[in-house]
Amino acid sequence: MSDKRAIGVFDSGVGGLSVVRQIQAQLPGENIVYLGDTARVPYGTKSQESVLKYTRQSADHLLKHDVKALVIACNTAASVGTKELQQLYPDIPVIGVIEPGAQAAVGNSQNGEIAVIATESTVSGGSYVKAIHQLDPKTEVRAAACSLFVAIAEEGWTEGSLLEAVLARYLMPLFNDPEHHPDTLVLGCTHYPVLKSAIANVVGPHVTLVDSAETTAQVLKSSLETQGLLNSEVSDGSLHCLVTDGPDRFARVAKLFLGRELASTQISLVDIN
Amino acid sequence: MSDKRAIGVFDSGVGGLSVVRQIQAQLPGENIVYLGDTARVPYGTKSQESVLKYTRQSADHLLKHDVKALVIACNTAASVGTKELQQLYPDIPVIGVIEPGAQAAVGNSQNGEIAVIATESTVSGGSYVKAIHQLDPKTEVRAAACSLFVAIAEEGWTEGSLLEAVLARYLMPLFNDPEHHPDTLVLGCTHYPVLKSAIANVVGPHVTLVDSAETTAQVLKSSLETQGLLNSEVSDGSLHCLVTDGPDRFARVAKLFLGRELASTQISLVDIN
Repeated sequence: MSDKRAIGVFDSGVGGLSVVRQIQAQLPGENIVYLGDTARVPYGTKSQESVLKYTRQSADHLLKHDVKALVIACNTAASVGTKELQQLYPDIPVIGVIEPGAQAAVGNSQNGEIAVIATESTVSGGSYVKAIHQLDPKTEVRAAACSLFVAIAEEGWTEGSLLEAVLARYLMPLFNDPEHHPDTLVLGCTHYPVLKSAIANVVGPHVTLVDSAETTAQVLKSSLETQGLLNSEVSDGSLHCLVTDGPDRFARVAKLFLGRELASTQISLVDIN
Repeated sequence: MSDKRAIGVFDSGVGGLSVVRQIQAQLPGENIVYLGDTARVPYGTKSQESVLKYTRQSADHLLKHDVKALVIACNTAASVGTKELQQLYPDIPVIGVIEPGAQAAVGNSQNGEIAVIATESTVSGGSYVKAIHQLDPKTEVRAAACSLFVAIAEEGWTEGSLLEAVLARYLMPLFNDPEHHPDTLVLGCTHYPVLKSAIANVVGPHVTLVDSAETTAQVLKSSLETQGLLNSEVSDGSLHCLVTDGPDRFARVAKLFLGRELASTQISLVDIN
């Protein structure tokens, strides 16, 4: 059995292309429709009510494209909306990035101490802490909001000692505490993989960085396999991006997250209100 | 003659309270209704079409509160929307922050070299350069987008050598050029006054910082005087804030810009769509 329908991926903006990159690496034959809500980005400082409303609107729009699965790439949206969307759309797999990230972190940690960095809203919602404790209640989890990191990543400022000093300002409270020695750090925002090597320099080689994009793609793959939804065509899948504002800016910033250029024909402006 | 109606001030979020602060300093008896479009903040990375649409919606909403004047506190909104709103509402003064800022800069510069820092969208729209050249075509104007500054200001990160090193990364291209020696720097975003003393430390004492909030309040005052719209009551004016998302976060961040606490009774959640 082969299912040519696309996978729907949505995100508050451009950062979710880091999840697309991992999906394409693991499932190169799949077609993908990506929705970036660039008119209302960022979600990380918005209220839970607004984020839930935007998440529902985005999912509704992607469903019009007859997608066979939904991936919530934005950590903030996944925090508040994964369960609700799973109830709204029981017939297709709905995968948020939180649980896969939590699984990878718990699977990796040797000493049961995990640190999470994310946006203000993801941290205050406590979703990673909950997801990790559901897997292992004994794990110690500490989370820090790193609000500046999104703007830094979108600028493409990815290396140098000044950058590392700025990152350390946010990371050190998690890692310079004599009582705590996390061996695992969850990158709980789609923008953070762009800063991965600089973050690794700051926290040192004894800390493993967990990028939820990678584990989300694995969970998606096994879910499609289990449900017989894989596309068995041998050719490369397509990628089409829908954005709610600024396709030019989206095209310009996309490469940082996707790892290659997007053609302007791959991007359409849509209204999801 | 005395006019008790409120002044309507609008902004993409919380930063416009730096303009409210200046209005209250110069016109303490005036009532103010402030609208912060926190559901769609920031405007600085959005397209001109979207910013214009949001600006119109915000102005329409404020007009329902029977305001006697409109102040566009957000530089990005003022860049694209001031002329349009002046045409839409010919019966009341509509004041954007760009022209007052340009006037103050041209009035201050001794050597005819002015630097402007603002958001990506304000810089690419070129509104400050146009407004300054309308006043004096011979002035040399160079502008730089300082995208990170908004996030830095909202975090309340206002001092220290690491902050100054980050600011310098953006400011030095304007000030370390042997061909150019601007003596005036326009803070072209409502968030930047929070960083004023750190920016002053970086650019040095020979550069005057122009805060358009202050000059906008002056222009508003003389406009109300000329048109007989001042409120001659002797008691202090009221301030009520309307926000499109997250009143709690708004209350928390407000103090940085307003210089004092806001009571939760002064903030209401509204839908302007």
